[in-house]
Amino acid sequence: MGSFLNRRKFIQTGALAGAAGLLSPSLRAQSIDTSSSVIGKSKWDLDSPALCVDLDKMSQNIKGVHTALQGTGVGVRPHIKTHKCPAIAKMQMDAGAVGICAAKISESEVMLENGIKDVLMTGVNVTAPKIERAMALRKKHTGFIQAVDNPQNAKDLQDAAKAAGIIADVVVDIDVIKRSGVLPGEPALALAQMVDKMPNLRFRGILAYDGGVQHVKGFQNRKKKALKNFEPVVATYEKMKAAGLNMEIFSGGGTGTYNMMSNFPGFTDVQVGSYLFMDRQYMVIGGENNENEYDDFVPSLTVMTTIINTNHPGRLITDSGAKSLTINRPTAMVIGEPGFTYSAGSDEYGTIRFEESSRSYKVGDKLEVIIPHCDPVINLYDVMYGIRNDRVESVIPILARGKSQ
Amino acid sequence: MGSFLNRRKFIQTGALAGAAGLLSPSLRAQSIDTSSSVIGKSKWDLDSPALCVDLDKMSQNIKGVHTALQGTGVGVRPHIKTHKCPAIAKMQMDAGAVGICAAKISESEVMLENGIKDVLMTGVNVTAPKIERAMALRKKHTGFIQAVDNPQNAKDLQDAAKAAGIIADVVVDIDVIKRSGVLPGEPALALAQMVDKMPNLRFRGILAYDGGVQHVKGFQNRKKKALKNFEPVVATYEKMKAAGLNMEIFSGGGTGTYNMMSNFPGFTDVQVGSYLFMDRQYMVIGGENNENEYDDFVPSLTVMTTIINTNHPGRLITDSGAKSLTINRPTAMVIGEPGFTYSAGSDEYGTIRFEESSRSYKVGDKLEVIIPHCDPVINLYDVMYGIRNDRVESVIPILARGKSQ
Repeated sequence: MGSFLNRRKFIQTGALAGAAGLLSPSLRAQSIDTSSSVIGKSKWDLDSPALCVDLDKMSQNIKGVHTALQGTGVGVRPHIKTHKCPAIAKMQMDAGAVGICAAKISESEVMLENGIKDVLMTGVNVTAPKIERAMALRKKHTGFIQAVDNPQNAKDLQDAAKAAGIIADVVVDIDVIKRSGVLPGEPALALAQMVDKMPNLRFRGILAYDGGVQHVKGFQNRKKKALKNFEPVVATYEKMKAAGLNMEIFSGGGTGTYNMMSNFPGFTDVQVGSYLFMDRQYMVIGGENNENEYDDFVPSLTVMTTIINTNHPGRLITDSGAKSLTINRPTAMVIGEPGFTYSAGSDEYGTIRFEESSRSYKVGDKLEVIIPHCDPVINLYDVMYGIRNDRVESVIPILARGKSQ
Repeated sequence: MGSFLNRRKFIQTGALAGAAGLLSPSLRAQSIDTSSSVIGKSKWDLDSPALCVDLDKMSQNIKGVHTALQGTGVGVRPHIKTHKCPAIAKMQMDAGAVGICAAKISESEVMLENGIKDVLMTGVNVTAPKIERAMALRKKHTGFIQAVDNPQNAKDLQDAAKAAGIIADVVVDIDVIKRSGVLPGEPALALAQMVDKMPNLRFRGILAYDGGVQHVKGFQNRKKKALKNFEPVVATYEKMKAAGLNMEIFSGGGTGTYNMMSNFPGFTDVQVGSYLFMDRQYMVIGGENNENEYDDFVPSLTVMTTIINTNHPGRLITDSGAKSLTINRPTAMVIGEPGFTYSAGSDEYGTIRFEESSRSYKVGDKLEVIIPHCDPVINLYDVMYGIRNDRVESVIPILARGKSQ
């Protein structure tokens, strides 16, 4: 008795799709649910907080990056740490992506087990359980490539690959911002050569991600920094190439630098993530054609929220706080109300302060907000609603939600 | 094929317990899993990030609040928005709580459907779907009480209760910090009397939560503010009592003020949440006996994290960033390393900076960190590991994780 309500709700929202095998073999986990009772509803009638993606706008962004990069020789390998949905990864692959990136082994598992064939894991696996999972995954899925950034880890991967009876595909991650990666230059070359010589590892190339430069404001300023920061990586690439190593992958770049990477010889693909949805953090950085707002991509991801208290002038309380929107800054932006300032500093409540509003609001009214930072917000929800022309067309399960291992 | 791995893992970790009815009626959702393969492991061998609660320390905190309040006439109604686990709510009830609080209707459903009988929902239900869910819940569970803070909502609840053929229990929420609640004084009295006269609502008393004062530093400073802020609430309580209303519930207070509330005549119970776990935000506020550290309760909740990069002096990179620890401040504290500063500003990575460390660290070493702010961190995980004497004793499903509606 106790679990029936939960069970029904899970199924309705698609959150149980990950365990769909329990119900019916035909219900595949990656499937977008188009049979839920919410299908056809106006987004304004969804109960809140509800995470919504405008499908036309997301499609425009998916196409947009390919159009922008056409003829540059740079491919697209979208990073799914942003959306965590196999169904959206499939859309990206269908649009011409060369593969996808995942940050963690648990994310890689979700993607490969749900129909995505080519996954480059950008993080390293250093614990014994993760290395074991990585080898089991590679054994089953030939399109799985993992990163390595230190010699001991390369040895551990070699031993595990040997024990698993496989040759595992590996890229070397090069340090750009003192976070992940092996130091560029000699240490990187030595590691690549070491990997290349290991009988159970196959060296596939390099990745280098400049996570610091993505949000630098002003296109020219950002570009200058991006080019400068990448110089040691490019020099390392040249050394490796000269040493005769297989450089088929040279991956990096993000939503803030995707159109700068063709400057680098040999560079193969950009790891864009946020371009799908945009968010307040990316909107404010400015683009090549618009220094005030980064409009290469359109904001497609929103949260529907409900006003629950109007007792004080110049203030509206909503049902969406830090547990629905995170405390990232810039904070959520209410669509249609440029004078509103949204604070999600309370865990359960949002507080809007304003001097001017386009109309008066009462308890129960809905607002739609653009989110502060897409990755951690999506990670709070089990599903996102696929919206077209303001109506729910699908329920998309966020199957890698919470996969932080 | 696609979902088998996920399914098996979900079952192992207990995350599917909410849908346990699918598997076996004997597997109750609230049940702590003591048969998982991780049982008996050292917490240092758990793969990371892993959320851990020290069961002895949590028990000490659960008992501690009752001991401290013994003889004051003030009861304990713990707020489960902090932990989101029916299994922990049951421990709190077994220790003598008068009931529990929940913030949202979806949390209330999880608790009531998983064996917790007395739930006071501190938030309001203003949308039609939520009001319908609330009445369905009240019809099934007589121990469900909900808050109301405006006259129109009271009318809507009355209509819905009538339609459901029930008399629904209601408390009036009184505004303390311009967030939720009806204004104290006449508006609150009028609302209470209105509810009291409605044939399908039963007025049970009031709640008033001073969310702003909980984290004020310095016990005396905090107490002064807490007493001052509550004056209008106390005056309202007196008015209501004089008007002959049923004042059986007068609930409020939190971990920062639990031992100040017996100053208010008629006050019945404190809505403590974080006392279970403590966190960096509460540790720094100071207590009655220790102005430097709030030590009424002991930190019991930690995240196990792994060092994944040591390339730069004075810097360690871990696998636990904002998606495992949030960006709340003060940031995570590494146990045993007072000289470490932890930043979880990256979504996927933690960065530790230090000048001095107690020992040298290498890639693969584990660290245990005290979390910044317990509520939103717990909301990122599907399970927490119950630890006793550094070994895993149980896997506790966080069944209301993500229940923000």
